[in-house]
Amino acid sequence: MADDKDKIFKPRPVSGFLEWLPEVRLVEQRWLKSIQDAFESYGFSSIETPSVEEIEVLVAKGGDADKEIYALRRLAAEPGEDEGGRLALHYDLTVPMARYVAQHFGDLVFPFKRYQMQRCWRGERPQEGRLREFYQCDIDVVDMGEVSLHFDAEIPAMALDVLSRLPIGPVRLHINNRKILQGFYQGLRIADVVGAIRIADKLDKIGVDGVIDGMVGELDIPPVVARKCVELAGIKTDDASFAEKVRAFGIDNELLEAGLEELSFVMMELAHLPRGTVVADMSIARGFDYYTGTVYEGKLVDYPDFPTVCAGGRYDNLVGAYSRQKLPGVGISIGFSRIFSKLVKEGQVQIGPMCPTEVMVACLPGSSRADVAVCARTLRERGFKVEMYHEEKSLKAQMKYASRKGIPYVWFPANAEQIAHEVKNMTTGEQAPAELESWKPAAV
Amino acid sequence: MADDKDKIFKPRPVSGFLEWLPEVRLVEQRWLKSIQDAFESYGFSSIETPSVEEIEVLVAKGGDADKEIYALRRLAAEPGEDEGGRLALHYDLTVPMARYVAQHFGDLVFPFKRYQMQRCWRGERPQEGRLREFYQCDIDVVDMGEVSLHFDAEIPAMALDVLSRLPIGPVRLHINNRKILQGFYQGLRIADVVGAIRIADKLDKIGVDGVIDGMVGELDIPPVVARKCVELAGIKTDDASFAEKVRAFGIDNELLEAGLEELSFVMMELAHLPRGTVVADMSIARGFDYYTGTVYEGKLVDYPDFPTVCAGGRYDNLVGAYSRQKLPGVGISIGFSRIFSKLVKEGQVQIGPMCPTEVMVACLPGSSRADVAVCARTLRERGFKVEMYHEEKSLKAQMKYASRKGIPYVWFPANAEQIAHEVKNMTTGEQAPAELESWKPAAV
Repeated sequence: MADDKDKIFKPRPVSGFLEWLPEVRLVEQRWLKSIQDAFESYGFSSIETPSVEEIEVLVAKGGDADKEIYALRRLAAEPGEDEGGRLALHYDLTVPMARYVAQHFGDLVFPFKRYQMQRCWRGERPQEGRLREFYQCDIDVVDMGEVSLHFDAEIPAMALDVLSRLPIGPVRLHINNRKILQGFYQGLRIADVVGAIRIADKLDKIGVDGVIDGMVGELDIPPVVARKCVELAGIKTDDASFAEKVRAFGIDNELLEAGLEELSFVMMELAHLPRGTVVADMSIARGFDYYTGTVYEGKLVDYPDFPTVCAGGRYDNLVGAYSRQKLPGVGISIGFSRIFSKLVKEGQVQIGPMCPTEVMVACLPGSSRADVAVCARTLRERGFKVEMYHEEKSLKAQMKYASRKGIPYVWFPANAEQIAHEVKNMTTGEQAPAELESWKPAAV
Repeated sequence: MADDKDKIFKPRPVSGFLEWLPEVRLVEQRWLKSIQDAFESYGFSSIETPSVEEIEVLVAKGGDADKEIYALRRLAAEPGEDEGGRLALHYDLTVPMARYVAQHFGDLVFPFKRYQMQRCWRGERPQEGRLREFYQCDIDVVDMGEVSLHFDAEIPAMALDVLSRLPIGPVRLHINNRKILQGFYQGLRIADVVGAIRIADKLDKIGVDGVIDGMVGELDIPPVVARKCVELAGIKTDDASFAEKVRAFGIDNELLEAGLEELSFVMMELAHLPRGTVVADMSIARGFDYYTGTVYEGKLVDYPDFPTVCAGGRYDNLVGAYSRQKLPGVGISIGFSRIFSKLVKEGQVQIGPMCPTEVMVACLPGSSRADVAVCARTLRERGFKVEMYHEEKSLKAQMKYASRKGIPYVWFPANAEQIAHEVKNMTTGEQAPAELESWKPAAV
């Protein structure tokens, strides 16, 4: 076959792995920078962990995440060589952060506040159409012994601030406290609390009848009790009034009371945010078993079908698998690539130029290359982003290049035929003389 | 054993994978930002490719890089499942860029100028002590049919500009042209030109006698001819005068002459740089066979034993493995992690604070938490990076926290006992009243 002879390997996209054209990448960079700036405005420190962890670290936390782990193997591994066999790509940033804190414990200052913006990998089966490589943007506070409950309010306030800087419309944050669910279920004398919470967590997907059938059928819970669980999940208030509604069930349980007090505190600390931004929502459970208190889920108000854009909560002992220190924490993870890729695909992201260039210095026939280069260097030293057009092509070709790339200004250096420098504004089409040392772009 | 019972997995560093404490990460971020800003000041577009490529893409280029490839496998792969088996982590950014250009050919504007700053992975055997995960910072220009020779000068000028923004002392760029070597060797009637260049490339390591012995012993080259190759490698000039020294050998070869003309052109285009920054150096060959013209190697002047900090060159047909288009290019890759990690380890990198925080708002007994939170929000809205101290701890503990983290200012909100806000400058120890709306940090 002709193709084989020439050894052309025609590249194709790999399912689940994103790659953007330069004009989309520019927007992605801007979004990531906004998030980073917001994180830093709260004084959080950046950390970056290796892309890999030892498999033992990744699976130490338990759960079923290890089904999705991408392990590494050296392509040229020699027979019997273990190398590569014990490493795998991380599937979130929470486990690497916990491992980092345990490993560098003595070198960190507590409360340790960190942000982390990195790619994660999940070996999803390709037919599921999910992302297999994606950015997460995480914030967590970890402290020794105790973490102040103020952080349970600051973390979601920060996440809302971060997301408000992106052009994605309003975000509503649903907050609950696992102690409320656990205490309520315990108070109802449900034996398998964890199992029952898992079923209730599917309310959105399987509906009221589905939850009741599940609890009754799978866990042998009396229908009247199951119905109370569903009623609890229906409580949603945008202030601390949820507490009296829960107390109206008349369930006497210490854990429940502790959860109600914690969540009331958090709702009151967040009372300065615009009404409706934060909702105390008794249906939120979060799947991960390591959450032990406050839990969060953020949703886009303008896109009701859109999956959760950020989620997190408080954990009392996440680092416990790697350290004897008690290191509780609270954090939120923003699913950056999930949000960005979905909005790009739906045409909801405004795409601009293909390059950061502000000025392209053209090269006209009759210009000295050295003079043209001096123009470019001078403008660059003045802080502008400048490219030179190097190919020996017609003025028309040069203008077409600048126009296709969305470069806003083209500079025509003075030469034998043109005494002054001139600048063309590519938006208005205007062309006017300009001085190298004082030219400024038009105010936008 | 007690350890097993408690299931503590004590984390340890994984050889070849870097991870920094927050204070070092802050410096790394600053360095990466400097590089990005420099790249963008030349109008180059960012691209980011997935961390993985299909193995066929990675090995299509040939060479022995595939020995170091980390392939992926799904940890939970089902028997007979191919999934994961055809993907591997990229080992450089050149191959992904070539694949990207071939794949998105119709959507790009040429000349396509891109920068790319990503991690790469090489499955080095751990005992070699090399980095197995590292950042590369690459710039390349790719065009259709021809790339202007002006780019052969702009690319190294850009690399030198980028590196001059980092506190690593002066960099010297050694430039050669593969056509000079090939033409010279052909003119000497050496049969295995590629083999002979490979041996000459080891001059630094094996010395003059080593090279001559190698050429004579392995390739049956007459000693007098081998000696000429060594003499050629000795030619180094900081202007275009190398050409007459090479021509003095009296070797008549078209390719040689073309190489001399190209390199003279590049040296003249770079004549505006400080003398000694760029050296035409006939000993530079670059191992990769895909370079066909200009080649570069950058060295730190202050660290003569330090390996190459940047390298690159011109290739006529890198994209050829993935496309029928002729897409030549020229580029340079900066070995970021190699430079940064070595300088950090040698204590040559100045380390500052642990966090980006500019102001910590303290919480004194008697303050209302709500008032304290308003202080923090107001300062943050004014553009400062602000953290609140949330734990209920003594003033002493709060000051110790700020001091250990290197936070420059501590804000004491007005409260019942203290009528005005006060700010403590942690460097000078001075404490003075301040206004929330007008306070500014002292000029540095």
